[in-house]
Amino acid sequence: MTIREEVHNMKLMLPKMASTDSEKKNRALLAISDALTAHSKEIYEANHKDMAAAEESGIKDAVKKRLKFDESKLYACTEGLKQLAGLPDPVGRVTLNREMDKDLILKRVTVPIGVIGVIFEARPDALVQISGLCIKSGNCAILKGGKESKETCTVLFNVIREAVIKAGLPGDALMQVSTHDEIDEILKLDEDVDLIIPRGSNAFVRYIMDHTRIPVMGHADGICHIYVDSSADRDMAIPIIIDAKIQYPAACNAVETVLVSRKIANEFLPKLEKALRDVNVKIRGNKEVADIIAVDGELLSDDDYRTEYGDLTLAIKLVDDVKEAVDHINDYGSNHTDSIIAEDRAAVDVFFSTVDSAGVYHNCSTRFADGFRYGFGAEVGISTGKLHARGPVGLEGLTTYRYLMEGAGQCVKEYAEGTKEFHFRDL
Amino acid sequence: MTIREEVHNMKLMLPKMASTDSEKKNRALLAISDALTAHSKEIYEANHKDMAAAEESGIKDAVKKRLKFDESKLYACTEGLKQLAGLPDPVGRVTLNREMDKDLILKRVTVPIGVIGVIFEARPDALVQISGLCIKSGNCAILKGGKESKETCTVLFNVIREAVIKAGLPGDALMQVSTHDEIDEILKLDEDVDLIIPRGSNAFVRYIMDHTRIPVMGHADGICHIYVDSSADRDMAIPIIIDAKIQYPAACNAVETVLVSRKIANEFLPKLEKALRDVNVKIRGNKEVADIIAVDGELLSDDDYRTEYGDLTLAIKLVDDVKEAVDHINDYGSNHTDSIIAEDRAAVDVFFSTVDSAGVYHNCSTRFADGFRYGFGAEVGISTGKLHARGPVGLEGLTTYRYLMEGAGQCVKEYAEGTKEFHFRDL
Repeated sequence: MTIREEVHNMKLMLPKMASTDSEKKNRALLAISDALTAHSKEIYEANHKDMAAAEESGIKDAVKKRLKFDESKLYACTEGLKQLAGLPDPVGRVTLNREMDKDLILKRVTVPIGVIGVIFEARPDALVQISGLCIKSGNCAILKGGKESKETCTVLFNVIREAVIKAGLPGDALMQVSTHDEIDEILKLDEDVDLIIPRGSNAFVRYIMDHTRIPVMGHADGICHIYVDSSADRDMAIPIIIDAKIQYPAACNAVETVLVSRKIANEFLPKLEKALRDVNVKIRGNKEVADIIAVDGELLSDDDYRTEYGDLTLAIKLVDDVKEAVDHINDYGSNHTDSIIAEDRAAVDVFFSTVDSAGVYHNCSTRFADGFRYGFGAEVGISTGKLHARGPVGLEGLTTYRYLMEGAGQCVKEYAEGTKEFHFRDL
Repeated sequence: MTIREEVHNMKLMLPKMASTDSEKKNRALLAISDALTAHSKEIYEANHKDMAAAEESGIKDAVKKRLKFDESKLYACTEGLKQLAGLPDPVGRVTLNREMDKDLILKRVTVPIGVIGVIFEARPDALVQISGLCIKSGNCAILKGGKESKETCTVLFNVIREAVIKAGLPGDALMQVSTHDEIDEILKLDEDVDLIIPRGSNAFVRYIMDHTRIPVMGHADGICHIYVDSSADRDMAIPIIIDAKIQYPAACNAVETVLVSRKIANEFLPKLEKALRDVNVKIRGNKEVADIIAVDGELLSDDDYRTEYGDLTLAIKLVDDVKEAVDHINDYGSNHTDSIIAEDRAAVDVFFSTVDSAGVYHNCSTRFADGFRYGFGAEVGISTGKLHARGPVGLEGLTTYRYLMEGAGQCVKEYAEGTKEFHFRDL
């Protein structure tokens, strides 16, 4: 079968997946969890092969950390699947139930989106999470992991697929592809594929957007900010900045730029500098910052503040007040997650009402932007676009809805002519 | 100012629009309603010019009917605005309120999408509706109407803009463009424009999708079906088919194909034929249909069933049962609105659970698929895509959301290390 035929077959299976009852889906999730544990040896062996190849080709430590699939990752995966099984079914929820007229009832009911293509980085655990989310939400998924994780992903995929079939779900609801050519082929199938979720660099997401008519839910890079207001509790600000920078610097929700009120810069920057030096974070800044503390590398130009470092580097900039901070964030940021550290409620209100990002935080770390931490059970990615789902995308973001109407012979003519009238009553 | 600069200015105004309170927005809607009535003479005069030009260039009756802006259209517009003013504010709704841990609160709050470009056909009343919906939902709108309606739209736009400014809203929140070159320029502004809503032919929507990275909410053509099951109440089926075909044949929710169960074809088709002939509807069909009743024009091939006629023409096809009907609809339809006429609950259940359309109806006309009829106050269009909004798009479809988090100094480190735990409690 060609990819085109396989995907078309998947589309034909949608009604079956969409109408699979909750119990069966949950049983499949638990079966996958058990199967992963039963096949752990096989999985670790495959991962060793991937890790060895990665060592040889000398890839970055951050990538290796993601690539590794050990006991703790397996545990997180199996626990995640169990949690997912315990969550309410996102399909079949009635979100509108309206009597339009006597014997004319309109309902809006959630349904799976359909065929979803997910292209993710070299993180084998992402394959498990995404498969689980798609099964629970009744979607069919085309999965493509980063090439460095090929061996691990193939074993994981086969274990998952077998468990899915044993649990009575259509095995063809999940499909793995492994080459870029196959992805290019899939991008052309806008009749059969309903959504593409690319995870990776901005350039990669843009490539996908430019080469398909299929809607793309963008998990782009994150240029997250923390603004330290003149009213900030300094003892709170520093640990939050350190957490947001070093807890997982490669994550998209790590902070890249700290904006500091000019009113407190002379006093605050030296303290921040010391805290950052203590944990080996490089400090970048423009001349105004360099006049107060030592900065690494060349002075930053305005445009340099559009950089996502993704490592132990932090850019600092001074601003007059919350308004200037918001203007900077809306212009230089990526609409991901931005936090204000402040005690002054008026400043927080301005920040909350005007920062145009998926996550707008007060007195906490940007690293909280995550489907698990939001209580969604898992996430298929973080959307920085505004349409459909925004922020961490869990089960809800993998559903859409249909309007179902039950009548008793009603025609529009009578309502258009005024001999009948709607009375809209929500039930 | 160039278009690019104007649109960028619009973007900068978003926070102001987004935080405008409900009362002010409602006042603006009522002010527009009053201003339209006050300037009715001017509006009618402009419309007479458009109508005269349309007569001269010999455009279709259907287009002329849309183009005409008379007292009844003005009344519908002003009433629509008043209704809109009375609806709840779609912005600022809290759709999730979760305590993640002590003093760590996550909220999801609805916000406007931002800058929306709406390209609509030669229907001046659409300009009023869309402006009203965008104001109520706090969005900024770039409006482009069909060129045949240019004179009317310009007068309407100026009246609306003046009323908006008088009511204290930023006048630049609405912008009118009139040429295709301007639209092409806007399609490039993916940094500043958040959504494009094109209304028009499938070819036009595809052109837009192929020429922009901005998300497109497609109001494509509608190939709607009515399936007459063997269990159908025949006395109900015929008036519904007639209504769905002739009540407004140019509408996207008019029926194009009627599927009839083979079990009742010999008895039902002659009755349907008579009813259709009585209201001058042309009948198209394949050989199987032509063997039972007289059909117009050439016999239809399978592929011909993908046609949207948009006039008094109806295609008929026979099917074995509800399953074959659903397969036909999912393959040949446009995922718009499809209706089953049946008394057999099992057949209805199959239809409801497997037709993959925005609207799935039972025993009523497809023409009900409309924002007004759903009780949304108005609609900006009908979406046949699955992402974001599906079916008639009203106020809710013009909003997105942000996650707001209030903390007291929390860092992720403690939760990652297990010294603190989330307890997720919905408030």
